[in-house]
Amino acid sequence: MKPTRVAGFRCRWALLCPENGGFFVKRVRIPAPIDVHVHLREPGYTHKEDLGTGTRAALAGGFTTVLDMPNTSPPTTTLDLWQEKRRLATEKSVCEVGFFVGATNDGTPEAVTEAAPYAVALKIYVNDTFGSLRIQDLGTLRAYIRAWPGPGPVVVHAEGLMLAAVIGILATTGGRVHVAHVSRREEILLIKAAKARGLNITCEVTPHHLFLTRDDLPQLGPYGIMRPSLASREDQEALWKNLDVVDAFATDHAPHTLEEKESTSPPPGVPGLETALPLLLTAVQERRLSLEDVIERVYARPRRIFGLPASPETFAEVEMGKSWAIGDRPFFTRAGWSPFEGMQVSARVRRTVIRGREHFRNGEVLAPPGSGTVVMPAQQHMAGGNLHVKELGKWNC
Amino acid sequence: MKPTRVAGFRCRWALLCPENGGFFVKRVRIPAPIDVHVHLREPGYTHKEDLGTGTRAALAGGFTTVLDMPNTSPPTTTLDLWQEKRRLATEKSVCEVGFFVGATNDGTPEAVTEAAPYAVALKIYVNDTFGSLRIQDLGTLRAYIRAWPGPGPVVVHAEGLMLAAVIGILATTGGRVHVAHVSRREEILLIKAAKARGLNITCEVTPHHLFLTRDDLPQLGPYGIMRPSLASREDQEALWKNLDVVDAFATDHAPHTLEEKESTSPPPGVPGLETALPLLLTAVQERRLSLEDVIERVYARPRRIFGLPASPETFAEVEMGKSWAIGDRPFFTRAGWSPFEGMQVSARVRRTVIRGREHFRNGEVLAPPGSGTVVMPAQQHMAGGNLHVKELGKWNC
Repeated sequence: MKPTRVAGFRCRWALLCPENGGFFVKRVRIPAPIDVHVHLREPGYTHKEDLGTGTRAALAGGFTTVLDMPNTSPPTTTLDLWQEKRRLATEKSVCEVGFFVGATNDGTPEAVTEAAPYAVALKIYVNDTFGSLRIQDLGTLRAYIRAWPGPGPVVVHAEGLMLAAVIGILATTGGRVHVAHVSRREEILLIKAAKARGLNITCEVTPHHLFLTRDDLPQLGPYGIMRPSLASREDQEALWKNLDVVDAFATDHAPHTLEEKESTSPPPGVPGLETALPLLLTAVQERRLSLEDVIERVYARPRRIFGLPASPETFAEVEMGKSWAIGDRPFFTRAGWSPFEGMQVSARVRRTVIRGREHFRNGEVLAPPGSGTVVMPAQQHMAGGNLHVKELGKWNC
Repeated sequence: MKPTRVAGFRCRWALLCPENGGFFVKRVRIPAPIDVHVHLREPGYTHKEDLGTGTRAALAGGFTTVLDMPNTSPPTTTLDLWQEKRRLATEKSVCEVGFFVGATNDGTPEAVTEAAPYAVALKIYVNDTFGSLRIQDLGTLRAYIRAWPGPGPVVVHAEGLMLAAVIGILATTGGRVHVAHVSRREEILLIKAAKARGLNITCEVTPHHLFLTRDDLPQLGPYGIMRPSLASREDQEALWKNLDVVDAFATDHAPHTLEEKESTSPPPGVPGLETALPLLLTAVQERRLSLEDVIERVYARPRRIFGLPASPETFAEVEMGKSWAIGDRPFFTRAGWSPFEGMQVSARVRRTVIRGREHFRNGEVLAPPGSGTVVMPAQQHMAGGNLHVKELGKWNC
């Protein structure tokens, strides 16, 4: 967890703020932040979250686009079910949202590939998690990876040897794979080796794996239970050390109610949409990341990996330099809690602007339900490997 | 299970045999048959088999060399333990024998690589089987594959997704892998794809997966329990159909006593040394294999894959064309049974000759205990892929 690079940004909103001990408080714009991994829980689990509360939480966290996972009830495993989610989003969503389709043992590769032009990606659960979509059979996994035509990638929940298995299929069968929530040293090193061999692979890490370890479990109790589980300090350090291998920061926003988390069998998952940018941009101020590191991984590479359309005049405006405690105001997520509650950060989302219109300002969602559009992959897929923010031209800051 | 090629051999011992309805009975020589996958059970499980009974069974089955697995008790996980096996073989063995070392969670890659110049290969159990050597951790598996220097290959027991995981590590980390007892359609197709991509991979199949399916389980009862388990007819057909992908026929000779097999928790494994060549050469007579197919897979490719030294004047002499029932004479293996018992075959090992000396003749082992030498890898490793018998020069037939 050592500093990696020195942030070299300057900002025209920089102000001398006497309330903050004389430090500079400044505002930076992050272009069109995308969270490529969220669970908005609708349909089926709307007591945890829905497309309204989840996208409001996204705006509050500075995200202008979120990509929603298919392990709802029913799971999003066909074009018809994808269409139903789009219909719901048209009624409720307040930010841009894209929907995954999911591979399933009951379905066929043909059923999901029908949705390929519309869905942002195909999600395959090779490891166990919340929901019922796990694929454990070599033939089925290979058939789905082989059949998926893109333009979106195949996104896998694949830990440990299951990650190696996915890479084995990628190396022999072809395709393009994005690895969700990498959390272990051996996993990031394997992905690094796969990239070095030219395999078409990208990956994401979550803020909770970057900023928490299993040492935090005694304090967190059930609020620290998620998949992949919190890892060792050594694993955490390997993620920071191999940041060049990491293509995206993604929250894996996975809300559950307080009651569920306090139950005898708490489900795995933590909310993350409202805390990711504050945590990451605090790390920028602590010089553990550069601002470019963050923008590359919440905007530039995610946009390329998922082939998302450009959104002009779309950004989050973040006040940096003034300390506050996570949870000092109520959360927008229906879950209503955060594993980072009480943590001091020094970056706060002040405005979230989509296509020139303020959707969120100073703690208030301004966008009406249904104002968020549904995004679909607009571009042919990009090569895996190291995409750099400088390839993407200028953005305002 | 259709015929693959027409055998085109001619043999100078061909005789018109009136006892056999006028059909030709002939003798063929198979050069230095090697069984690259046997469990001789010593030390630790000598009530099942030992280096004496196991190598006698090998000679009776026509094998002049066997490669013995490390899941004994103690498991062969260090050079010292390898040396102890060599010492035992020097006292008891009646055919040539090579010994694996095994990867273990308790040990280190360094401990086994010390044995690399002596051991025929490194065995890694990624799936569960008899013994205690299973590796389930990505970091450990990758460390062993990366550390193993050869000249022998890394041999894996890896089924389904675990096979894909091994291939993922091979594709990203390098090395050379031989896959034990491939039994499923998806596995042979994945190995075919890996070979097509130029990965350094070879594989073996067992006679029990070639000649039995799970349809035989009701009749076999506990005697049909092994790892990998018997597969479907579709899986079996895929092995036959993709014979060009198969580099070796290996028995996975895994003796257990009748009492153990009749117990409430029968251990997995079946003996195979005395039945493999009769079964395979009967398939030659049925024109489902050619004689070259068999010689390539019990001699030529195995010798290359494991870098074994040449043995001049070493062969099995097999009488072909006269029908007999497996089990019509007592078995040499201490297990004393076979899952093929009662099956009619038309090839019988008459003589097994090593370096010009008859070690077995007409049902009798002639070689004294300790007459078998211990083989070590003599050559630098060979590339994976398709090695053809014609590359290996002439042999007598």
